[in-house]
Amino acid sequence: MRLLTFTHSPDDTTERLGVETDGLVLDLAVLADRAGVRLPHDLLSFVQAGPAALEAARSLLAADPAGRPAEAVHRLDAVTLCAPLRPGKIIGVGLNYIEHVEESSRSLDTDKDLPPRPVLFGKPATAVTGPGAPILHNADLTTQLDWECELAVVIGRTAFRVSEEEAYEHVFGFSIVNDISARDQRRSGQWFFSKGQDSYAPFGPVVVTRDAIRDPMALDLSLRVNGITKQKSNTRHMLFPIARLIADISSGMTLEPGDVIATGSPSGVGAGMVPPEFLRPGDTVEATVEGIGTLSNPVVDAR
Amino acid sequence: MRLLTFTHSPDDTTERLGVETDGLVLDLAVLADRAGVRLPHDLLSFVQAGPAALEAARSLLAADPAGRPAEAVHRLDAVTLCAPLRPGKIIGVGLNYIEHVEESSRSLDTDKDLPPRPVLFGKPATAVTGPGAPILHNADLTTQLDWECELAVVIGRTAFRVSEEEAYEHVFGFSIVNDISARDQRRSGQWFFSKGQDSYAPFGPVVVTRDAIRDPMALDLSLRVNGITKQKSNTRHMLFPIARLIADISSGMTLEPGDVIATGSPSGVGAGMVPPEFLRPGDTVEATVEGIGTLSNPVVDAR
Repeated sequence: MRLLTFTHSPDDTTERLGVETDGLVLDLAVLADRAGVRLPHDLLSFVQAGPAALEAARSLLAADPAGRPAEAVHRLDAVTLCAPLRPGKIIGVGLNYIEHVEESSRSLDTDKDLPPRPVLFGKPATAVTGPGAPILHNADLTTQLDWECELAVVIGRTAFRVSEEEAYEHVFGFSIVNDISARDQRRSGQWFFSKGQDSYAPFGPVVVTRDAIRDPMALDLSLRVNGITKQKSNTRHMLFPIARLIADISSGMTLEPGDVIATGSPSGVGAGMVPPEFLRPGDTVEATVEGIGTLSNPVVDAR
Repeated sequence: MRLLTFTHSPDDTTERLGVETDGLVLDLAVLADRAGVRLPHDLLSFVQAGPAALEAARSLLAADPAGRPAEAVHRLDAVTLCAPLRPGKIIGVGLNYIEHVEESSRSLDTDKDLPPRPVLFGKPATAVTGPGAPILHNADLTTQLDWECELAVVIGRTAFRVSEEEAYEHVFGFSIVNDISARDQRRSGQWFFSKGQDSYAPFGPVVVTRDAIRDPMALDLSLRVNGITKQKSNTRHMLFPIARLIADISSGMTLEPGDVIATGSPSGVGAGMVPPEFLRPGDTVEATVEGIGTLSNPVVDAR
């Protein structure tokens, strides 16, 4: 199931929970109300509600399409997508693709050896922005705004001290995060302000439920700036695979429903180019992950 | 006003919003209900509600104490205090006291020069724990569990691109955070996992409103382990004062009501001792900030 959050138009900003199917967006709240079914009306509550909500949504979608009320059905290109949900926390994973470790050690201040443990950092919920929404370029703060296409894991069930074997039982689904960084805003090596500013976590366009992705460790991912491919890899090249990340993080930190793990960027970031390339107002960045879709965001001057 | 969150007993875990006054805890929800006044029932909602909620609470407290219903009045030592609220984000400030910069460069891997800009990092809300609650010592993950007594600033009004002059208008009040770190869980220099594990952000015991602290930049703060003083300083020794921190953070990152800035630790952390000293199960850590109180937490074996 391809879940999303949308508004009818830029003028009607009420966020609605939808499902994408056959180029259409079905409004789950409208379907549920018509069927007399109780269903959370936003994706975070839906995730928190667990398998029962997913089961209820499946039943609604299985009903005869001819019986769907017109106000429950929208063309995908007629709605405005939003970030799927506001996570309690976003945990980023640095240096999780081998070739990116190498380029990072050349161009940034990181070690050239492979990290022995996942390199974790936080991005706050205020950094989240939706598909199509602007990435804020503030030239007073940065001249090194950079991109990173990442597979995002959305937690479905509380995880504390979970083994690698059990890890996927705690996954709700998958999405895309573009882990934007102002490389020149690292502070004594800490990445929080460089990666945590408003709009630095484009997220979406949809959350694909776990059952709908055959193997999350074998997905092509790529990123383009103004149509030119900058990153191209496959999640099989992750240094620490998803199950290991969940086991490692949850060894000390509770993962809650709706939390997001941004599983790291492959090589091809702007800082690693010779000469370096960075985002500028007017650019468009498109991050694609196989089976999920494309997350496209314009870069705007936000001084 | 000294606001707090409490439960009647360990058995009744309903969290209640209270005010501490004269060694008593007044249940604000009970007072409001009796007076027919609408008031948020938890501190985060109270903060989000802005000056009107504070004004309503002041009126309730100004009423004749003799008229207070018995169920609104508790002895402070008869209730269980909780973390005052669950922040949307906690922003820590590293290396913000000059003598701590020096000890940190000796014992940890930080620069010996004063940082030119605030060193910011994130702690997730899942790290928060309340007064008296255990700090989890997991010897499988760390043998270097350390303390840091910090003045916590609780944001009251959304702040984005706020000047130093306007900064305090966005402050709701002040509290204490003990910024616990597993020094041996830094990952390629990133502090998120070393400082972000469950229970690594003891918070409380109360939030003192802004008007009740004459000068937040002139508060004694100290920390004791098993009664022995380890840290002793004054907030006047901060490298970047509170107004500057708010201006700096909000230059790129929206601060929301309930967000917490942990303003940095003075010298006297365990890693800086010769030889180093770290927390062990059975220890008790007490962090005190003048005008706020003492935040005391036991360290427990959590393997």
